[in-house]
Amino acid sequence: MLTVNAYAAPSATEPLGPTTIQRRDLGPHDVLIDIAYAGICHSDIHTVRGHWGPITYPQVVGHEIVGFVREIGSEVTKHTVGDRVGVGCESNSCGHCEQCRKGEEVYCLNTAVQTYAAEDYDGTITQGGYSQAIVVNENFVLRVPESLPLEKVAPLLCAGITLYSPLKHWNAGPGTKVAVVGMGGLGHVGVKLAHALGAEVTVLSQSLSKEEDGKRFGADHYYATSDPETFEKLAGEFDLVLNTVSAKLDIARYVNLLAVDGTLVLLGAPSENISLPAMPLIGGRRSISGSANGGIPITQKMLDFCAEHDVLPETELIDADQINEAYERVLSSDVRYRFVIDAKSFA
Amino acid sequence: MLTVNAYAAPSATEPLGPTTIQRRDLGPHDVLIDIAYAGICHSDIHTVRGHWGPITYPQVVGHEIVGFVREIGSEVTKHTVGDRVGVGCESNSCGHCEQCRKGEEVYCLNTAVQTYAAEDYDGTITQGGYSQAIVVNENFVLRVPESLPLEKVAPLLCAGITLYSPLKHWNAGPGTKVAVVGMGGLGHVGVKLAHALGAEVTVLSQSLSKEEDGKRFGADHYYATSDPETFEKLAGEFDLVLNTVSAKLDIARYVNLLAVDGTLVLLGAPSENISLPAMPLIGGRRSISGSANGGIPITQKMLDFCAEHDVLPETELIDADQINEAYERVLSSDVRYRFVIDAKSFA
Repeated sequence: MLTVNAYAAPSATEPLGPTTIQRRDLGPHDVLIDIAYAGICHSDIHTVRGHWGPITYPQVVGHEIVGFVREIGSEVTKHTVGDRVGVGCESNSCGHCEQCRKGEEVYCLNTAVQTYAAEDYDGTITQGGYSQAIVVNENFVLRVPESLPLEKVAPLLCAGITLYSPLKHWNAGPGTKVAVVGMGGLGHVGVKLAHALGAEVTVLSQSLSKEEDGKRFGADHYYATSDPETFEKLAGEFDLVLNTVSAKLDIARYVNLLAVDGTLVLLGAPSENISLPAMPLIGGRRSISGSANGGIPITQKMLDFCAEHDVLPETELIDADQINEAYERVLSSDVRYRFVIDAKSFA
Repeated sequence: MLTVNAYAAPSATEPLGPTTIQRRDLGPHDVLIDIAYAGICHSDIHTVRGHWGPITYPQVVGHEIVGFVREIGSEVTKHTVGDRVGVGCESNSCGHCEQCRKGEEVYCLNTAVQTYAAEDYDGTITQGGYSQAIVVNENFVLRVPESLPLEKVAPLLCAGITLYSPLKHWNAGPGTKVAVVGMGGLGHVGVKLAHALGAEVTVLSQSLSKEEDGKRFGADHYYATSDPETFEKLAGEFDLVLNTVSAKLDIARYVNLLAVDGTLVLLGAPSENISLPAMPLIGGRRSISGSANGGIPITQKMLDFCAEHDVLPETELIDADQINEAYERVLSSDVRYRFVIDAKSFA
């Protein structure tokens, strides 16, 4: 067992603080990664605060992890010591179901083990990336292309793949019109990715306060959802609407923005039920779907795509002792656009 | 103008009764059809009773129409006198929008004119198939293959295409698992079509009272939705769930029956909003969609498919003076499985 420094939530209500955790001994297919950077995702906050159900404390979160391979298990073939690597939202799955065999581990029919706060197949509770090092099965370790600066890469492992996966699944590209709802950590990467894929990109944000940024990131159009005219003007416009907002929205208004055969994809889960009339779906063969992050093969493709197209999240680097303050700023949308923790500060 | 006998609803509350209506003079692209049979669709009842909003009375309904061409306009090329033909739910559209150009007239971006109770492009209110004859633009007239008995064909023009279109759109076929919710006029044709397409077909009906019929029509499995175990046993099972029930259902229970990447398609519109949690969509990339009947090209393909695979609705032939009684029987689900009016009885 390896003892490493980490930042953990001691309970649902207390601030995160320094602690030490144990990482398992390397199994034959395990990789020990020295973490360089870990992104802060809104999910981290929901999880430690118990918004998504009770968890076991103390809990280390973080599922946007990049670093270097320090050591590999005896049968590891995919990675070698010194490699630049990443770990995202899942760190294990059954490996043999239909979805795992297709490389859609995130939809594992048994259990896709989340990188933190989840029971792994060995019965332990997973501890995430706010720490110095992590041990992960080689199949869940991504290669980070050399050209990508590590500090910026971290948020691609959750925010990036969460947007890239539906963009690819619903064929965003030249000739398609994509709307990204919300210009936060997920949304701003979605704009960059959709633009790089060649789609015509519209941002639907509460206000126009980030319009300049949105257009710099590749948005062709930018509208405020606080303006009712937006919904009139854009009725029937989009092939794909990616909703990154997990707060409750009037979904019916967004369905009306879909073209015939268009799809509204929910990426954030509101705690309340969504409610909408059936007629706009029937009358235009419109769909409402959801999408989780993405399997390992497509996550690797996303990293390679970002290297090729120079897509990088906008990040603000912080030290571990700034995590609690960063959480407050995430909650008040005061971040441009993703916090990344410098893992040296766990030392 | 041609005066023809018909059966009309004088108001939302009175029974239908005999009347005469005017059919327009043949335009250069019009076809005059002597109606042989007209099916009774649940939509007819919703419409005349004002469930879907106020309409103009008297109103003749019926959008499952088959018969013979009596006369053609001067520039008609697609049909000739004596042809066996049909008319379905739409009898006109703008003809030039993206959807019309794709042959998806039902999703016309201007107005897909319903065969009854709709304002046509000439400002008249369309009158449907419960009558002796009808005049329709040749582009909305379908060829009925010789091998199909006319009396049985009528319900294919609405019930048939309403099921065939989503089955094709969502790729039902060998290796896919399809559930049909409801074993009524729509559902029973859906079972036959899905089976003919090679899918593994499951019926989800309130009770097992029609199980023998369902299996005869091609269902591989038959479950009662009144049994809560059905929903446990079939969780995650289906690639495609076609909901033909327009009464309010607990949609969340049906979403849980979907496999990863599965789609629940609403074919009937409940009057209340549908309500469901987002998580089952996100966690399995599941979709909820709707689908209207189908454009003209796919409706023709459906008729040809039914001829090739010997797919025919189960019908009960009635005379015009039985329409009101038939409505009551439709409302109490006492029909096996579609009423068809013998148009000779309008004489």
